[in-house]
Amino acid sequence: MVSSAVVNTYPLSSYTFGAKEPKMEKDTSVADRLARMKVNYMKEGMRTSVEGVLLVQEHNHPHILLLQIGNTFCKLPGGRLKLGENEIEGLKRKLSSKLAANSPGLEPDWQIGECVATWWRPNFETIMYPYCPPHITKPKECKKLFIVHLSEKEYFAVPKNLKLLAVPLFELYDNVQRYGPVISTIPQQLSRFQFNMIQS
Amino acid sequence: MVSSAVVNTYPLSSYTFGAKEPKMEKDTSVADRLARMKVNYMKEGMRTSVEGVLLVQEHNHPHILLLQIGNTFCKLPGGRLKLGENEIEGLKRKLSSKLAANSPGLEPDWQIGECVATWWRPNFETIMYPYCPPHITKPKECKKLFIVHLSEKEYFAVPKNLKLLAVPLFELYDNVQRYGPVISTIPQQLSRFQFNMIQS
Repeated sequence: MVSSAVVNTYPLSSYTFGAKEPKMEKDTSVADRLARMKVNYMKEGMRTSVEGVLLVQEHNHPHILLLQIGNTFCKLPGGRLKLGENEIEGLKRKLSSKLAANSPGLEPDWQIGECVATWWRPNFETIMYPYCPPHITKPKECKKLFIVHLSEKEYFAVPKNLKLLAVPLFELYDNVQRYGPVISTIPQQLSRFQFNMIQS
Repeated sequence: MVSSAVVNTYPLSSYTFGAKEPKMEKDTSVADRLARMKVNYMKEGMRTSVEGVLLVQEHNHPHILLLQIGNTFCKLPGGRLKLGENEIEGLKRKLSSKLAANSPGLEPDWQIGECVATWWRPNFETIMYPYCPPHITKPKECKKLFIVHLSEKEYFAVPKNLKLLAVPLFELYDNVQRYGPVISTIPQQLSRFQFNMIQS
């Protein structure tokens, strides 16, 4: 794990993008998703998930890589940890599953940086909070976001059913309607970092 | 400066509060404030300000100390740095001016922790952003928020014209109308920390 207050960001154009087999969502509706969460909670207890904040720059402004499903919904690359799995190792596994080519030699050497946010789901509902609310003794999910330090060159293989977007911080900021509470407040969580914008 | 992912929070009841002479606001209106900012910018360039996030706990939930002016407006303790002043030293000076007794022996030994957010003011206007907006080459203010690690016991002397409030994270969260964009997103910026709630 890399701990640094400086984040090097390279131009979007320095990365190469290809396609790979689709990664379908496990659930087709929010209700299905919450029902599956409940079943898993009975078996394994609180769900722990990890997501990566991958940064590039365009026009000297930081952009975040988001995966778009369909025409509207955007998410960070990441997912659920296996029972007992280390969060850094689990995030690397999830990043590879979402963004790396299937041949091991082409996988990025993921450099996981600091945790930038933690979100808690108190109930089997969509709403999450950036703290565990008082009186909640058994939260249903804890989700952690980590900075991912990209190298100057990477090859990303994007599942065919998803689009990879580079979204500028100014588009995310104060845009909870479009991106939801977790993604729309990433600009505030990143504001303490110094971005070293590297030109191509 | 203290760098730690763990923040000890002690009960509000373990601190003692007294009063001291009023600290009047330098400006009586927002227009006056922006005009003074403009005059200072001509003399000294970009304004740099520092504010402290001081945490206590009540009912096992983190609370932030805010200074209330009149019946509505709340602010973090802090203020403007002198030209060339170190930000950590400047924050200590400002915290003492706002919250410490005037006798040097009673001043808290301020332990300044990590920067949790940076906000930029692109123009002589009230609006600030958690990044320097693209195409802004001469921002007018840069404001940094730092965690302040309180000791188990402290004596705070509060200026008579202000009230010191301990506001729970759940009250700040998603409450931009009441607290503004800087204070209402502190819960998200603190979510990466682990709070060690110490009982009295």
